[in-house]
Amino acid sequence: MVSAGEKPAAGADEYDYEYFNVSFPQEYVAHVEINRPEKLNAFVEKMWLNISTIFTRLSHNPSIRAILLTGAGPRAFTAGLDVQAAAQPGSIINPTNPSADVARKANALRRDILAFQACISAVERCEKPVIAVLHGISYGLALDLSLACDIRLAAADTAFSVKEVDIGLAADIGTLSRLPKAVGNASWVKDVCLSARVFGAEEALRVGLVSGVYKDKGAAVAAGAELAGVIAGKSPVATVGTKEILNYSRDRTVEDGLRYTAVWNMAMVQTGDVKDAMLSGLRKTRPRFEKL
Amino acid sequence: MVSAGEKPAAGADEYDYEYFNVSFPQEYVAHVEINRPEKLNAFVEKMWLNISTIFTRLSHNPSIRAILLTGAGPRAFTAGLDVQAAAQPGSIINPTNPSADVARKANALRRDILAFQACISAVERCEKPVIAVLHGISYGLALDLSLACDIRLAAADTAFSVKEVDIGLAADIGTLSRLPKAVGNASWVKDVCLSARVFGAEEALRVGLVSGVYKDKGAAVAAGAELAGVIAGKSPVATVGTKEILNYSRDRTVEDGLRYTAVWNMAMVQTGDVKDAMLSGLRKTRPRFEKL
Amino acid sequence: MVSAGEKPAAGADEYDYEYFNVSFPQEYVAHVEINRPEKLNAFVEKMWLNISTIFTRLSHNPSIRAILLTGAGPRAFTAGLDVQAAAQPGSIINPTNPSADVARKANALRRDILAFQACISAVERCEKPVIAVLHGISYGLALDLSLACDIRLAAADTAFSVKEVDIGLAADIGTLSRLPKAVGNASWVKDVCLSARVFGAEEALRVGLVSGVYKDKGAAVAAGAELAGVIAGKSPVATVGTKEILNYSRDRTVEDGLRYTAVWNMAMVQTGDVKDAMLSGLRKTRPRFEKL
Amino acid sequence: MVSAGEKPAAGADEYDYEYFNVSFPQEYVAHVEINRPEKLNAFVEKMWLNISTIFTRLSHNPSIRAILLTGAGPRAFTAGLDVQAAAQPGSIINPTNPSADVARKANALRRDILAFQACISAVERCEKPVIAVLHGISYGLALDLSLACDIRLAAADTAFSVKEVDIGLAADIGTLSRLPKAVGNASWVKDVCLSARVFGAEEALRVGLVSGVYKDKGAAVAAGAELAGVIAGKSPVATVGTKEILNYSRDRTVEDGLRYTAVWNMAMVQTGDVKDAMLSGLRKTRPRFEKL
Amino acid sequence: MVSAGEKPAAGADEYDYEYFNVSFPQEYVAHVEINRPEKLNAFVEKMWLNISTIFTRLSHNPSIRAILLTGAGPRAFTAGLDVQAAAQPGSIINPTNPSADVARKANALRRDILAFQACISAVERCEKPVIAVLHGISYGLALDLSLACDIRLAAADTAFSVKEVDIGLAADIGTLSRLPKAVGNASWVKDVCLSARVFGAEEALRVGLVSGVYKDKGAAVAAGAELAGVIAGKSPVATVGTKEILNYSRDRTVEDGLRYTAVWNMAMVQTGDVKDAMLSGLRKTRPRFEKL
Amino acid sequence: MVSAGEKPAAGADEYDYEYFNVSFPQEYVAHVEINRPEKLNAFVEKMWLNISTIFTRLSHNPSIRAILLTGAGPRAFTAGLDVQAAAQPGSIINPTNPSADVARKANALRRDILAFQACISAVERCEKPVIAVLHGISYGLALDLSLACDIRLAAADTAFSVKEVDIGLAADIGTLSRLPKAVGNASWVKDVCLSARVFGAEEALRVGLVSGVYKDKGAAVAAGAELAGVIAGKSPVATVGTKEILNYSRDRTVEDGLRYTAVWNMAMVQTGDVKDAMLSGLRKTRPRFEKL
Repeated sequence: MVSAGEKPAAGADEYDYEYFNVSFPQEYVAHVEINRPEKLNAFVEKMWLNISTIFTRLSHNPSIRAILLTGAGPRAFTAGLDVQAAAQPGSIINPTNPSADVARKANALRRDILAFQACISAVERCEKPVIAVLHGISYGLALDLSLACDIRLAAADTAFSVKEVDIGLAADIGTLSRLPKAVGNASWVKDVCLSARVFGAEEALRVGLVSGVYKDKGAAVAAGAELAGVIAGKSPVATVGTKEILNYSRDRTVEDGLRYTAVWNMAMVQTGDVKDAMLSGLRKTRPRFEKL
Repeated sequence: MVSAGEKPAAGADEYDYEYFNVSFPQEYVAHVEINRPEKLNAFVEKMWLNISTIFTRLSHNPSIRAILLTGAGPRAFTAGLDVQAAAQPGSIINPTNPSADVARKANALRRDILAFQACISAVERCEKPVIAVLHGISYGLALDLSLACDIRLAAADTAFSVKEVDIGLAADIGTLSRLPKAVGNASWVKDVCLSARVFGAEEALRVGLVSGVYKDKGAAVAAGAELAGVIAGKSPVATVGTKEILNYSRDRTVEDGLRYTAVWNMAMVQTGDVKDAMLSGLRKTRPRFEKL
Repeated sequence: MVSAGEKPAAGADEYDYEYFNVSFPQEYVAHVEINRPEKLNAFVEKMWLNISTIFTRLSHNPSIRAILLTGAGPRAFTAGLDVQAAAQPGSIINPTNPSADVARKANALRRDILAFQACISAVERCEKPVIAVLHGISYGLALDLSLACDIRLAAADTAFSVKEVDIGLAADIGTLSRLPKAVGNASWVKDVCLSARVFGAEEALRVGLVSGVYKDKGAAVAAGAELAGVIAGKSPVATVGTKEILNYSRDRTVEDGLRYTAVWNMAMVQTGDVKDAMLSGLRKTRPRFEKL
Repeated sequence: MVSAGEKPAAGADEYDYEYFNVSFPQEYVAHVEINRPEKLNAFVEKMWLNISTIFTRLSHNPSIRAILLTGAGPRAFTAGLDVQAAAQPGSIINPTNPSADVARKANALRRDILAFQACISAVERCEKPVIAVLHGISYGLALDLSLACDIRLAAADTAFSVKEVDIGLAADIGTLSRLPKAVGNASWVKDVCLSARVFGAEEALRVGLVSGVYKDKGAAVAAGAELAGVIAGKSPVATVGTKEILNYSRDRTVEDGLRYTAVWNMAMVQTGDVKDAMLSGLRKTRPRFEKL
Repeated sequence: MVSAGEKPAAGADEYDYEYFNVSFPQEYVAHVEINRPEKLNAFVEKMWLNISTIFTRLSHNPSIRAILLTGAGPRAFTAGLDVQAAAQPGSIINPTNPSADVARKANALRRDILAFQACISAVERCEKPVIAVLHGISYGLALDLSLACDIRLAAADTAFSVKEVDIGLAADIGTLSRLPKAVGNASWVKDVCLSARVFGAEEALRVGLVSGVYKDKGAAVAAGAELAGVIAGKSPVATVGTKEILNYSRDRTVEDGLRYTAVWNMAMVQTGDVKDAMLSGLRKTRPRFEKL
Repeated sequence: MVSAGEKPAAGADEYDYEYFNVSFPQEYVAHVEINRPEKLNAFVEKMWLNISTIFTRLSHNPSIRAILLTGAGPRAFTAGLDVQAAAQPGSIINPTNPSADVARKANALRRDILAFQACISAVERCEKPVIAVLHGISYGLALDLSLACDIRLAAADTAFSVKEVDIGLAADIGTLSRLPKAVGNASWVKDVCLSARVFGAEEALRVGLVSGVYKDKGAAVAAGAELAGVIAGKSPVATVGTKEILNYSRDRTVEDGLRYTAVWNMAMVQTGDVKDAMLSGLRKTRPRFEKL
């Protein structure tokens, strides 16, 4: 069971946020819970700034080897951007720019979009693998955010939607850049991004958006926690390198991927973890790896 | 229902072609029908030149927000290149080059191939989303063409084949460049491209070549028309941007995709459509968007 | 049936290796069998050097148009790297570098990794299509190697694992660079690469790692041999070009793919095979193509 | 001497334009002269549309192997965009868009910019080498245009300026994309693009923007014509290939450049020109090459 | 004249740093002076963290349109990394990592290098153009830093050196990534990077590393300030766009550069600055542009 | 002085070739001399095969840290391809392909070109820096070869020519892919590649093709040897890394260059050479570095 009340394995005072519960349910595992259930976990600006801080800290936290990301409450992973808040003057889609000049507004908007993107990309940049477990309403930012994670699991009741066209926008926080590389059906990608239609967990599994579907939120979170535990039991040198090389290779030629891998491993193969892992394999024991 | 006889919503006199029916069955929707059913809609040169003209015009036509592409008659979306015509002297695979010099023939061939590719790529370059509905025989150029579309739906009776190796050629009008990015099974891609075997709609759905299969042509075209209607009901600023960013991102790093998105949206977020869409959302009304 | 005893179609004396059986079961088809069944076909250094030699030779062998790659014995395609051998001093993961300097060890490791990668990449560089048929234990190098092949088929009993994290390593011989481009479920790719869990043939088919699953090794090898025969019956100009362009396009923009295709085909369309293939098509005869 | 009155070597009726003189002063050489000297050869929209048509025709004209581009009159190659015309309603920087919506204006502007860029890029896409000879005032579009040429020569009196920042714009017709790759002083590139200062021919030569400076326009045009004659005397298979491969390689990795070169030459080396050129070399005669 | 004592044009309290003087000598111009002259302006960690903060703030400061970067004192722009400080335990090249494991040290080093690079890259990311004026000793980090600037000017006495190989390192803060794209002599780049030899301002000018050389520091700083004033007098919409597009295009194909430019300018051409700049041009007045 | 008679520092028996003298004139320096002076050092196939072998061996030879490449005799570095030999049946530009089929000839040619390119690229892939010293006739392959070197020096009498268009060919062994990235004058690159004109050492220096010109061959070789000695005196960890990162960065974005650098140095900064170099710097002694 994953709960926020356990004794943290790592400097937990750095992990105290209004809209996020950060707990340490197992050794080497962090659990980040989006916690604004009364608003379907909809995001206000403070929340994406916090996302960035939390994952940047976990990235370098030597006590963490795998991270679980979930949404609090029974109804939603997140309903996406809190549109009411976003429509306030001074917000991301309604900037209070004293200038009426289109170019100056454009420049202010570009700064805001890049800053927002960078917050969500902090999850992808986080060295440690991140497992998102989605359930219930999972709209808009739910896609942007979970696509920046490494692994996506879903409860059977998950209702996904790339919602942005319904508010007159091309999604700009990452979905359109990451989705075509995450799933293997370009026709489906265009369909859901252009129609904004809601689709379910089974469809998400079939096209490859998630890699597992579970009967309800409890089962999905339990599966995510178990997988986090498995990954946390591996050499962190191996898992951090695997995440890094997979992300690098996704975007480049196979030749460049191989070359980067060789340079990465010329250092990393010198780790003592290889010997420890091999000996444990022979002795059928559970290896213990130094912190990273 | 989709028919060619309705009153066109936009300058239809520009859309009069021997082998294509262009109609405007719904507001903001164009229907392009390949119309050479007595020859299984096989393509002669005039047809790919027309494809380019039609989609270039629709791209900038402010009355159009979504396009449906189908094949006339019960038997074929298209059987591909009209091989008899193509084997005539002076044609694409049998150029009448007075020179016997290999290099000069090569240069003439390169010009022809690039020109042919550019015609088909006009569908991808078209700003507005294009939905292809395939049925019956869908060989060779059927793949090149439908892969340049955004969304692919199929009737259950569709018989697909990447046919080119059977005439001694590597396919050169786009299938080999787009297919590996459209479906998520590289082994299958090589299989069908190297064997030229015929495969059906269910297999196409399973590997991700199409995103929907319907019981017959009628049902498939109806589904395509309905989806076109859904897309045409959205803000064109949002749908045009979504197509553009997805196509850009497919081929580049996630970082470059994000950067391009921010620059795109620094202008596009300033549209009034965002406010209109949000208000309609709150009021549960159908938004009306200005032409693009 | 595929057996090693048949009369070779091509200079078979060049194909005599301790751990590989190279046979020529059909016209234009080579069969390469990994042959160290008593060690579950685990790889020692000599074997990847031989892989490189064999596929480089087959690449230019005019009598070969398709290649089948299988593992000898009932238990394994390959269990991967022979870890015991690899742990010996002087080996890839335990180099005997007289220097204790980290940088010098790193440089020696980089050389070794690049050399090892180049051996496996020889399969991808081989001009002729390669079909891997996996069965039984297929761990670690089994993925690296089969991902460098064009087509992957599997017996129902295949047990796959991206095993490297279990020995403290990010896989470095190609899996992490090729897998994200071979299958259409990025979440699943991260799952199996980070957890090193064993997965079966049906799962491999569902996510797109293989394009066919057969009831047992015999059926799978028979299907692979049949497919090899089909490909070997096509114009080699067409199949070699198809492999080359698909591999080029996988890693680049669609625009670059089209441009490369046009330059490729400006020579290749001048082949007499087009005429031969077309005539055979009209006459319903089996075409004969000159050697390549 | 280069004049427009000579008997054209090729279908000159296709080359009759209000603002351009197209002549054929030597065998295989075309001379395109910008001819609006009373307005310092400033460009109105018709002119860039004509540039595109002219160079697209010359590209495929078998009688042409090299092209000279100059400006009529003593005072200017071109003063750039005709700003008065461009400021008229309906023009490129003052579009008459009935909509006041920023996004819709943006989309219209993007179409216009892409169309304008494509006209100028027609010079780069032209298969045959193009030599620009600049003199006098050479502002704004003079850079965009000459950077799309292959070779730039200048009269000593040339006054260059990347003028766009002085009208509140980042140059968008190619200078900013091509200049950093054309000259070897990134600091100087930023200096002249940000300050819009005028610089002379000697400075242009020193930083590498031009490859020759001559005492006056007459000498520069004569030198350009002589060089055009030299290039026109070579095998067109060789010169067309050289231009294509240099342009491709400029933008890509050396590895990709080599790979493209090999595919290009697998056709082109089969030309009879190699034998002809070699024999002429041995016999000290001037080779004659078939038209391309 | 540039001095630190003038009344700042913008929130100067944010610009108070131990080792940097930040002043505002002209309207819209900031002057950043590296101020540790007693140590030849050698860098300790605090300094590169401050560089990042300063340029990130100036980037978004609406009162700033051009930035001058110089070194205090007569002897050095900067002698580079403070090697004594860097050799202390816990520093960038001598990290106090409690682990002796090579891979863990490697990971800690990678974090440190990426963080250091990001600080220097803040100068390149700064929206506003930056002019570096070098003088005296300009070693190691002097190159990394000035190559992240847009324009490089030098006093005649400048002594440059890519010093890193002399301390056993490949330079890792940007010189090796930016220098090959900044100057047009690849042989010279390898020469100075491999030999670490000292070279002077005239040589730097000849190969294109700087774009101006002045008789002494005073003259060079005055020239830099004048150029900063010129740039600050232009439309900031134009200069910010010019910097952004030049940096983007430097690293990508010409085609991608053009496409990005069109999307950038679809917003930016809508600025009122175009009209203001044109009117000022006609009226021969100095235009006033709104803050950005 | 550099001579072939000195006692080799490294397994010289591996360096015995008909057309190359390989000597070891200084500690850690190899001197490779093209030795076919009676034929102006023109290349026959055996020679490029040997180039590949020699540089591949020197790359991993721990006694070598810098390499000098020169041509024997007073008249030529190399006159390029031995055209008489190349025109023999069975050679690179006159392949004896029993087939008359264009596609099959094309495939054979592609294999030959790729193999030839790979031989010359072995110089670029060589881990250790290579200094080419050119003199006298330096045509065709002289450019291909010296552009694969790191540093180019020239005697005043050097006569360069990119000769290939004079034999009806686009140069295909690397000049067209590397020259645009080696010099900073794109107009000049096109000029010399399209005209095949001969140019001298001073011009080569001015445009940036070489980084030093010396009064005669003797002085140039002496300067090259001295520079080789300087480089050989540095930490090989530093010089090998510098070459690798510069080559990687030349072809990629600055961002990718920085990322690769960080991964490279996470291993390499752990070398003991840093401490040794620093101590030697403080003590004003000459450091001794372990072999690499």
